[in-house]
Parts: sequence; C-alpha cells; structure tokens
Amino acid sequence: MVAPALLPELWTEILVPICAVIGIAFSLFQWYVVSRVKLTTDLGASSSGGANNGKNGYGDYLIEEEEGVNDQSVVAKCAEIQTAISEGATSFLFTEYKYVGVFMIFFAAVIFVFLGSVEGFSTDNKPCTYDITRTCKPALATAGFSTIAFVLGAVTSVLSGFLGMKIATYANARTTLEARKGVGKAFIVAFRSGAVMGFLLAASGLLVLYITINVFKIYYGDDWEGLFEAITGYGLGGSSMALFGRVGGGIYTKAADVGADLVGKIERNIPEDDPRNPAVIADNVGDNVGDIAGMGSDLFGSYAEASCAALVVASISSFGINHDFTAMCYPLLISSMGILVCLITTLFATDFFEIKVVKEIEPALKNQLIISTVIMTVGIAIVSWVGLPTSFTIFNFGTQKVVKNWQLFLCVCVGLWAGLIIGFVTEYYTSNAYSPVQDVADSCRTGAATNVIFGLALGYKSVIIPIFAIAISIFVSFSFAAMYGVAVAALGMLSTIATGLAIDAYGPISDNAGGIAEMAGMSHRIRERTDALDAAGNTTAAIGKGFAIGSAALVSLALFGAFVSRAGIHTVDVLTPKVIIGLLVGAMLPYWFSAMTMKSVGSAALKMVEEVRRQFNTIPGLMEGTAKPDYATCVKISTDASIKEMIPPGCLVMLTPLIVGFFFGVETLSGVLAGSLVSGVQIAISASNTGGAWDNAKKYIEAGVSEHAKSLGPKGSEPHKAAVIGDTIGDPLKDTSGPSLNILIKLMAVESLVFAPFFATHGGILFKYL
Amino acid sequence: MVAPALLPELWTEILVPICAVIGIAFSLFQWYVVSRVKLTTDLGASSSGGANNGKNGYGDYLIEEEEGVNDQSVVAKCAEIQTAISEGATSFLFTEYKYVGVFMIFFAAVIFVFLGSVEGFSTDNKPCTYDITRTCKPALATAGFSTIAFVLGAVTSVLSGFLGMKIATYANARTTLEARKGVGKAFIVAFRSGAVMGFLLAASGLLVLYITINVFKIYYGDDWEGLFEAITGYGLGGSSMALFGRVGGGIYTKAADVGADLVGKIERNIPEDDPRNPAVIADNVGDNVGDIAGMGSDLFGSYAEASCAALVVASISSFGINHDFTAMCYPLLISSMGILVCLITTLFATDFFEIKVVKEIEPALKNQLIISTVIMTVGIAIVSWVGLPTSFTIFNFGTQKVVKNWQLFLCVCVGLWAGLIIGFVTEYYTSNAYSPVQDVADSCRTGAATNVIFGLALGYKSVIIPIFAIAISIFVSFSFAAMYGVAVAALGMLSTIATGLAIDAYGPISDNAGGIAEMAGMSHRIRERTDALDAAGNTTAAIGKGFAIGSAALVSLALFGAFVSRAGIHTVDVLTPKVIIGLLVGAMLPYWFSAMTMKSVGSAALKMVEEVRRQFNTIPGLMEGTAKPDYATCVKISTDASIKEMIPPGCLVMLTPLIVGFFFGVETLSGVLAGSLVSGVQIAISASNTGGAWDNAKKYIEAGVSEHAKSLGPKGSEPHKAAVIGDTIGDPLKDTSGPSLNILIKLMAVESLVFAPFFATHGGILFKYL
Repeated sequence: MVAPALLPELWTEILVPICAVIGIAFSLFQWYVVSRVKLTTDLGASSSGGANNGKNGYGDYLIEEEEGVNDQSVVAKCAEIQTAISEGATSFLFTEYKYVGVFMIFFAAVIFVFLGSVEGFSTDNKPCTYDITRTCKPALATAGFSTIAFVLGAVTSVLSGFLGMKIATYANARTTLEARKGVGKAFIVAFRSGAVMGFLLAASGLLVLYITINVFKIYYGDDWEGLFEAITGYGLGGSSMALFGRVGGGIYTKAADVGADLVGKIERNIPEDDPRNPAVIADNVGDNVGDIAGMGSDLFGSYAEASCAALVVASISSFGINHDFTAMCYPLLISSMGILVCLITTLFATDFFEIKVVKEIEPALKNQLIISTVIMTVGIAIVSWVGLPTSFTIFNFGTQKVVKNWQLFLCVCVGLWAGLIIGFVTEYYTSNAYSPVQDVADSCRTGAATNVIFGLALGYKSVIIPIFAIAISIFVSFSFAAMYGVAVAALGMLSTIATGLAIDAYGPISDNAGGIAEMAGMSHRIRERTDALDAAGNTTAAIGKGFAIGSAALVSLALFGAFVSRAGIHTVDVLTPKVIIGLLVGAMLPYWFSAMTMKSVGSAALKMVEEVRRQFNTIPGLMEGTAKPDYATCVKISTDASIKEMIPPGCLVMLTPLIVGFFFGVETLSGVLAGSLVSGVQIAISASNTGGAWDNAKKYIEAGVSEHAKSLGPKGSEPHKAAVIGDTIGDPLKDTSGPSLNILIKLMAVESLVFAPFFATHGGILFKYL
Repeated sequence: MVAPALLPELWTEILVPICAVIGIAFSLFQWYVVSRVKLTTDLGASSSGGANNGKNGYGDYLIEEEEGVNDQSVVAKCAEIQTAISEGATSFLFTEYKYVGVFMIFFAAVIFVFLGSVEGFSTDNKPCTYDITRTCKPALATAGFSTIAFVLGAVTSVLSGFLGMKIATYANARTTLEARKGVGKAFIVAFRSGAVMGFLLAASGLLVLYITINVFKIYYGDDWEGLFEAITGYGLGGSSMALFGRVGGGIYTKAADVGADLVGKIERNIPEDDPRNPAVIADNVGDNVGDIAGMGSDLFGSYAEASCAALVVASISSFGINHDFTAMCYPLLISSMGILVCLITTLFATDFFEIKVVKEIEPALKNQLIISTVIMTVGIAIVSWVGLPTSFTIFNFGTQKVVKNWQLFLCVCVGLWAGLIIGFVTEYYTSNAYSPVQDVADSCRTGAATNVIFGLALGYKSVIIPIFAIAISIFVSFSFAAMYGVAVAALGMLSTIATGLAIDAYGPISDNAGGIAEMAGMSHRIRERTDALDAAGNTTAAIGKGFAIGSAALVSLALFGAFVSRAGIHTVDVLTPKVIIGLLVGAMLPYWFSAMTMKSVGSAALKMVEEVRRQFNTIPGLMEGTAKPDYATCVKISTDASIKEMIPPGCLVMLTPLIVGFFFGVETLSGVLAGSLVSGVQIAISASNTGGAWDNAKKYIEAGVSEHAKSLGPKGSEPHKAAVIGDTIGDPLKDTSGPSLNILIKLMAVESLVFAPFFATHGGILFKYL
C-alpha cells in the first residue's frame, strides 16, 4: 500500500468546485465590463469603454475621437445589424440542436441497449474485470449511468457553444463602436468577450464533470472501475455534439462566406461585408455558429475526453485500487489550477498592459500563450507535489508500472510545452509577419495557380515540427506513465484552455466587428483597425486549431489505449492482417470525411452564388445601394444546406466504430483508430494552416504595410484577385474539414472506449462465422 | 519433405529466359513497325502506316486524306521539332544520370561498408540465421553481392527509362503524321510505341534478374538465404534510380508546363503548345523525361522489388530449405507468363480490332486492361499448378505456415483483380465521360475557387474504393500465405505490367503528338484528333499511376514484412512508445516530401514565367510569329531547377531509414515504414486523381462535345480560364509529388530490408545509451 497524496480528500472536494466557481465569476465579470459599452443611442452611454475607469474609460477617449463617436445613427445601425446576426445565429442553432437532439436521443438508446446487453441485461452484481476478488455493479447499471453521462456531456457541450455564440454576437458591435476610439480599446473589448467564453467553458466543463462524479459515486460506492467507465459517456456526449456543431457550423459559415465572396468580390467587385451583398448577414452569422459555437463545443469535447481518458486509466491503477480520491482527481486539480493561471494571464492583456498600435496586437496575443505556459508550469509542479503520492502504479496493458510524481509532472509539462511549440509554429506559418505567408503572397504575382501550389506546400510543410512535438510528448509521457501519461499530457496541453479559447474566440469577434463597420458605413479608418484585429485573429484562430489538433492527437491516443485495455487485448500488432487492414482503412477515413465536407461546402456555395446573382439581377437598385437585399433567403440556404449536409459525415464518424467493432472485432477497430489518428492529424494541421496562410496572404496584400506588399496590391489588382481565390479555397479547408478532423479522431476513439465492453463480448461476428 | 513442383528445374531454367527473349523480340518488332512511318521528306515514304499492309497500310489512307499527307514542309517541320525534343530529353537525362551516378557510387560504398561491418568484415563462413545447423557465406560476401545487385538494378532502371524516352520521342512526330490519316492510325502508332517500352522493360527486368540469380548462385551454392538477401540490392538499385527519375523528371516537366501555361494561356491568350511560347520545347521534353523515363523507372522498381520481396521470403520457407528451384522461381514464372499474356492482349488493340472514331479510344484502352486480366487469371492458374508443390510452408514471423498451391493462386489473383478495380475506379474519377469530372467542369462556372474545392474533394473521394481493394487484397493474401502472399499479390498486380506500361506511355506520346501538330502549324482537325488521343491518355496515365500506387502499397508491405523478419522482431506493437512515434512521424513524411516537391515546382515555374515574359517583352516580333523564341534558355532553367531541387527530397527518402534505424532502432523504423505506407498511399492516389480530373475537366470544356460542355466553353471563356487554373495546380500534384510518393514508400521499405542486418546489429544507439 503506497502512501496517499499530501492534499487531504476534503480539501480536494472543496478546492475543485471553488476554482470552477471562481472561473465562472470571472467570466461573468468580464461580461459585465463588456456590457458597459452601450449599444443604445442614449447620449454619453457609449462612452465607458474599459475596466479601469481611470485608465481606459470615459476620460481619455476624447483624445482619439475623430470618427463620430457620438454619431447616433451609426450606433443605431450597429445595434440593428448585431440584432440581425444574433437572431440568425440563435435561429440556426435552435434548428441544428433540434435535429441533433433527435439523433442524441436515438444514440442514447443505442448506448443503453448495447451496453446493457453485455451481461444480458442482468441486474446482478459481478466480479470486477481487473480485480476479480472484488464485486462490481452490473453492466446494466453502467449502461444506464453511461447514458446519463452521455446526455450531460451533450447538454454541457450545447450550452458551451450556445453561450459562446451569445457573448460573441453581444460583443461584435461593441468592438466596432470601440474601434472608433482606437485599436487598443477595440482589442480589449474583443479579447474580454473571448475570455468570457473561455472561462465559462473551462469552468462549467469542470464543474459539471465534478458534480457528476460525486453524484454517481453515491450509487457506485467503492466500485470505481464501474464509476469511471460510466463517466466516459460524458466525453462521448461532449464530442458527438461537437462533431455536429463543427460540421454543421462549418458548412453554414463557409457556404455563406464562399458564396458571398464569389459574387461580391470577384464578379461585382464590391468589398467584403458590403451591405449590398445579400449573403453578408449569413456570412456573419456563420462566423458565430461555426468558429465560435462549433469551436467551443470542440475544445470542450477535447477537455472532457482527456479528463475521462485519464480517469478511466487511473481507476484501474493504484489510485483507484487504494481509493485515493485526491490522486484520482489529479486531472481535475490540473484543470482547476489552469483556471487560476489563465485568470492571472488574462489580466496581462486587459489590465497590466495596454495595446496602443496595430503592431502590438500579435505580440500581446502571443504573450498570452507564453505567460500562461510559464505560470502553469509552476502550477503543475504544485499540483503534482500536493496532489499525488510520491510513488504509485499505473495500469499498462496487463501489468502495473511504477511511476514517481515528478515523472507525472514531466508528462503534463511536456504536453503543455508541446502546445506552446505548436502554437508558435502555427503562428510562424500563418501570420503575415513572417516569410512563409509573404512568399505565398508573392506567388500571387503569377496568378491563382501558383498561389494555390505554394499554399498547399506551406500547409504540408507546417506539419513537420508539430508532429515532432507531438511525437516527443507521446514518447516521454508514454515511457514514463503509459497511457495515463499520454492522457495527462493532453490535459497539460488543454490546461490553459481558458486562455486558448479567449484568443481563439477573439478572432471571429473581430471579423464580425469589421463586417459591422462595413455594413454600418463607417469610415475607412475604422475598417483598417478592425482588419488589423482580424488579421491577428486569423493567426490566433489557426493557433487555436493547432492546439485543438495537438490535444486531439494526444487525447485520442490515450482513449485508444484505454479502449485496448478495456477490450482485453494486449498488443496491436501491425503484422497481423486484421490490424493492417484497419490501419489502412483508418488512414483513409479522414479523406472520405474531407471529401464529404468539402463537397458539401462547394455545393452549398454554388446554391448561394445563384441566389446572390439572382438578387443582384432582379432587385432594381441593389447595386446602387438604394434597395435592400433579401438577407433571409441566404440565411435559409445556409441553414438548409448545413442541416442536410452534416448528416452523412456525422454518420460516417459515428457509425464506423460500431460497424467495425461489431463485424470485424476489436483488433481491426484498433487498427482503424490508429490509422485515422496518424493520418487525420496531418491533414487537419495542413488544412488549417494552408487556409490560414491564404487568408493572411490576402490581408497582407490588402493592408499594404511594406514596400513588397504595396507592389502586390492594391485591392482589385491581379495579384489581389489571385489571393482572393486562394482565400476562398482555404475557407472550407480551414473552417470546415480541417477542424472537424480532430473531432473525427477523438470521437471514434471515445466511442470505441464506451462500447468496448460490448465489442469485447459480441464483436467481430464476421470473423467468428467465417 | 514435401513433394517438389511438377515442372522440372531444367524446364524452369529454359522457360523463364525464353519468355523474356520473346518479350524483347516482340518489342523490337513493334519498334520496326513504328519505324515504317517515315519522317523523311522522301515522297511516298510517309505512306506505309500500319503493320498489316493490306489492312492498315498504303492502300486505304487516300480515302481519309485531306490534311496534306504529302505536304513535305509539314513533315520536315515535324522531324525538326522531334529532333529538338529528343535532343533536349537526351541531354537532360545525361545530366541527371551524371549527378545521380555520383550519388549511386557513394551509396554503393555505404551499402558495402555498412553490411560488411555486420560481422566486422570477417571472411569466415557462419551458421545461417534461420537454420543454425547449416553454414552460410560471410556477411562480407553478402555486402559485396548486394552492392553488385544494387548497381545492376540501378543500371537496368536507367536503361529502362532511357530507352523508353528514346522510343517515345521517336514515336511522337510519327503519331502526328499519322493523325492526318485519321484517329485510328494515330492511335495505333502511339499504342505500339507504348508497347515497345512496356515489353522491353518487363522482359529486360526479368532477364537481368534471372541472370543475376544464376550468376550469384555459382558463388552461393546451397546458401539460398544469403543469395536472395544479396538479390534484394537489385530492388534497391532500381527504386533509388526511379526516385531521382521521378522527382527530377517531375520537377522538370511541371516547371516547364506550369511556366508555359501561366504566361501563354493565361496572360498572352495563345493556345497550348504554340511555337511562339519559349517554354514549349521544354514542356514537351518534360513529358518524355518525367512521364516516360521517370514512370518507366518507377514501375521497373516496383517489379524488381516485388520479385525481391517474394524471393527473400521464399528463401527461408520450404522452397528454400528444400532447394526446390522451380517453386523458388514462382515469382519469375508469373512474370514470364505475364509477358506472353500481354503479348496476346496487345494484338487486340493493334491487329484484331481497329479504332475508327474518337469515342472508341477509351473503350479500346479499357479493354486492354480487362483482356489482360482475364487471360492472366488462366495463366496464373497454370503457373500455380505446374510451378508449385501442392502443399508447402511459408515463413511467418518466427513460425512456418502451411500453404496450399490453390491458396497462392488466389493470392496472386486477388492482387491482379484489385489492380483492375483500381484501374476502373481511377478511370471513373478522371475520365470526362463520367459525372465526377463533369461536375468539376460545371463548378468552373463560379470560378477557379469552386473548381479547386470540387477537384480536391473528388481526389479525396477517389481514395475510398482503391483503399478497400488494397485492404481486401492484403487481408486475403496475408491470411493465406503471410508476407509471401502479399508479395505475390503485388506481383499479380504487376504481372500485366507490359500492357499497363503500354497504355500508360501512350498518354505522353499522344500529348507530344498534339504539341508537334500545333508547333508544325497543322490544321485544327489534326489537333482535335491528337487532343482526343491525349484526353484518353490523361485517363490512362491516371490508371497507370493507380496501378503504380496500388502495387507500391502491396510491395512495400511485403518488403516491410521481410524487413521485420530479417531484423529479428516478431511483433510491431502500436501500443509501445517506440512504434507509435514512428507511425506518427512516418505518416508525416509524405507531407514533408510533397511540400518539398510542390515548392520546387512552384519556384522553378516562377523562374520560367519570368524568362518567358522577358522573351515576349524583349524579342521583337515574337508575338506576331516573325521571330523565333530562345527555347534553349527555358530548357536550361528546367534542367538546372530539377537537378538542384531533386536533391533535398531524394535525401529525405534515402536518409530517413538510415537515420531512424541507426539512432532509434528497428522498432521505430517499423513504425515509420507502416506510417508512411498507410498515409502515403492516400495522398498519392488523391493527388494523382485530382490532377487528372482537373486536366480532363479542362479538356471537356475545350472539346465541347455535349450541350453541357458547350455551355461552359469555348476556349477563353471564364469557366475555361478557371479550368486552366485547376489544370495548372494539378500538374505538380499528378506528375511530381503524387507519383513520387509511391517510390517513397517502396524505397524506404526496400532500403530498410537491405540494411536490416546492419540495424539489427548496430542500430538503435540512442536508446542503447539513454
């Protein structure tokens, strides 16, 4: 019997929820600060801009004022546009959730029936799987609790996405209004709004998980094996919602974006976000449902899955066997510490320093990553010291492996720092401050074809270092603490999720702010400021995707390991026919999935183009700005297309593990999981970075801040047209298929884990009867 | 002791070389027939066109004559252009071979030193690895013979590529001249020329391998383990030459092609292959050095490696232990039968039937695949019946597995038929007779961006069925006969290589014929005919690439299995840190490699564009056709770029196995091989098919044969311009990075196999000392 952790169980029971509540409170405070930027035309109310009244508030805006801060018609127009965007997004999400809800009810039933059938729906207790001297709860109970956890995960995911969207649509017009006072003010509003989402999501994810564990424990008592097996349903629920959120939202936003660009920018030569473009509202709605709600659900899913993977492996290790609750909760303690660290980090962006000029935006965001990582390293050391026994054992495919607490500290750190490296590499390849994107912009001189060739090459190249970073993390964490090490490495990467989400959500908010400025007819200077915010936002969005993918790789490996343990196989040997065909087919799935999503965006965009063209051709005075376009039809096209088109890729992901596991058995399924993991990561990274690079290459030409950039521009020049084509191609890559792929690899792994007892009992019928 | 094969050893010794000689003779005969189309201006000499004088010859051309068959200036011009292309290609290949030669000498030394060091350069005999009761030759001898086999493989590969290029450049102007008489005549010349290359390559590859085995046997005597280990050097030599051929040739051809198109078609609005374009000769030279010489070396490499993989596994199975020479030569007997089958198949295209109209071209080529597959199935049955014992054992990672001859028959067949399925799927996705390409063409309505999105989606989607076909082949052959089964399945797919190469080489020959027609100023009708030939050629080129990739997947799996056996490890468990990081990094390598090759093409194309623009701007009268462009400078740009740019990707592929094996050991190397295999196959297939589809979508719009196609055209319309952009992007995908990837996966596997004894002894130093 090893010594328990230093931190008493009671303290753990108190500290975790307190940190979660602090996170939620901080989030609400940020919301309050943002809400002080008034959107009513009540004179003087639009004045208080920042948190520190003395410093950022009313007193100093007059110095910068020159853009009609008090022009009431502009404020009214902004408020009107915001309402339209918010209503469109809400209406879409409700439609989406309605359809997905039906699916969730069906899938919940599948979980209950399949898992219940493992012991023939028996209600008798049984010997535990890993320690047959003890008694565990029946499979039917685990089926029931897994189903409940699944529903809880799905609901939390929905709420995360929905609330994120709400705050984003609440913040975008406010960011536009603040942009009149200067780039620094606008930056702070956008960043605070991102922080609302980041903290709300990280804290509520932790809180719900914590409460669920404690409630389930009332029934399970000492049967921690069953308890944490049931908890994995939480990860599955979160991730399956995220899949539909990402895919549906991704198709929505890019159908509108591509459709709007193709007619507006290329055919009619009107600027982006021009109010005359009928698809412009749909485009802005899309940013909120895709990049905000979808992404929020995605990262929540990663977080939930990483926690579940760590917990389920821990439950059959010495923590679980000794019932050391504090050590068991090590993953939750890491996340709790993460919330506190991110809180401090946020203050560096909003209060300790102030952005004054455009070129300070990117460093400020980058510093967020560095600061949070450095402080978190200390935080992890503390948690590892007080929250873990100095030595313990971890389950490693049939054997118990001895691990020291400093080794686990290193596992978490390696994940955390790998995340930072991935972030930096992503920034290097997608920011137009560095040569890769500038080279891509330069290749526009010879037209769209070379732009595409260079962009694809850039994306492929950007895979190299992140893969080495992930590989090193895996090697270190796996060598030290087997799959538990990999799971906590993933948690390490996700421990600063609040900050990651804040800088990620900042992007679409700025994008929307720019759109509103354009639509409200605000001056060119305002638009320049929001464009600068947006260019930094493209890079942070790519960084966020980098984090999401890197953590997805680690998470799915950990889930894969947990699945293999639970399915009762000890090796996954590539040199067996069942595994190698799984590997090959698994590596193909991301292509199949991408084919579906790309084609969906393309088809929906074609419909959008036709509608936009029709409106330009049939509504008199539209081009001249005297008539209003019919925004609602475009919103409807995006909605219908995304609802219809998200079903096939969704089914591909959700059904593959079930079909493979049931017909071909756990060995082939292991191969499929490993194959989709190693192949999907590459496509996801390259697709995100290619798209991000094209977008910023275009922005580089438009901004024209250097001699080189000026020689390529201005807007409307031949190189700029080529850059717009690249940007349009990149849209579905970076916002639909790329980011959905990390859900694909995670979701198939967590689904396999949840259904592992079923597959182990009833799976592989094809080989049994052949 | 099992019974030996029915066929006596002496018969095998006679039959294999006889079949090879028949193949070479048939190839020379086809060359003779092609040579009867005269390129001199001697009146009346340009008259005899076909093989059967009565049917295809002088007698009936008058009926079709209308394009100035006897116009001597046209003939002279064609001859002149042909000479320029041929000289350019020869000069490039000599330059390329000079550089590669230096590398080969260096690498031969590496092989000798590394393999010699396994037993410390001892000259003493030693106990055999798999049967320690017997005595085998020293490692130093194997090092020496491996080096010799490596050089032989490299030289044969060079000769295959070079002779292929020679016949192609010999045939292209002749095809143009025959096109004046009708599409059928031109088709036959192009097809016969392809057949020259196909048969020459298949037969000489077989003959050299056969002679090498027999010569080495004089020294090795009863030590077949050492003999066939040394023979694997032949595969390595063939494949490493192929790498440089594919990459160098691929960069050459696409730099020229992209450069020519960007200025010519997009900026100057002059047709493809217009003689005013300074890059036009470089473009045509490129087709011959890339698509012909590179592809010939590639498929020769596949063939050599598949044979070596089968032989090395067989040598430690009952065939080798019992010294049953006929059964041992089963792979060679399959290839011998393949030559005879392809010979009969060829007659169906050239003599039994005759093409009369354009729409018969594609079916004729497709029938070649079907006929050869059907006849070959019977051939395999015969060979399996007479060439194998009814029952024997195969080495299966440490154990011997009993296999029946009918099971091995099924293994070969499943590979053969999987090849046909891959061919059909490729045709479906790349031919403009079907909806996928037509949809891509249709998406050009909304511009280049949707064209690219649809094209990428098409490529991703086209991966699905081929992967299932490969997976099923692997499952069946692996289940029946372990890695030997996989190796013979690969040989089955390659058994009809002569026909495959014939229809593959046909493509670039037709492409060049079209170029010559344009440059010689021949009429629009001639150009239409060569375009029709070329469109079918694009499809067959894609089919050829599909075969190359499918067989590469099987070959590299077989080589991988042989490597694992030779390196003395029995499982490759994904659930070990060493393997999983290998898998992840291996899956990344194809992206790294593609990034390099795509960027190389892009950069070289930019240089080409500048030069072409410079010439148009500075040479007076060039646009008007009164002055001649400076072709030589463009040729030099392509040459220099490809020589310089082929080195980094070449080093990546050649050094990775050495570095990983030496520093990280055989487990990680196994992971790298498996990862690059499962990931590379997907990118290779999707890149080839995307490129092929874009090319044919463009041709579909240009040809305008249907109402739909007409609504998109004509040349110069907006949709056509969008299609040209897609075509240009597809060029490096389908002709540089895509096809090079199958060499990447094969070459790393065969290199690992050759160096396996070294890695097993000295490898993994990083883990040894950490």
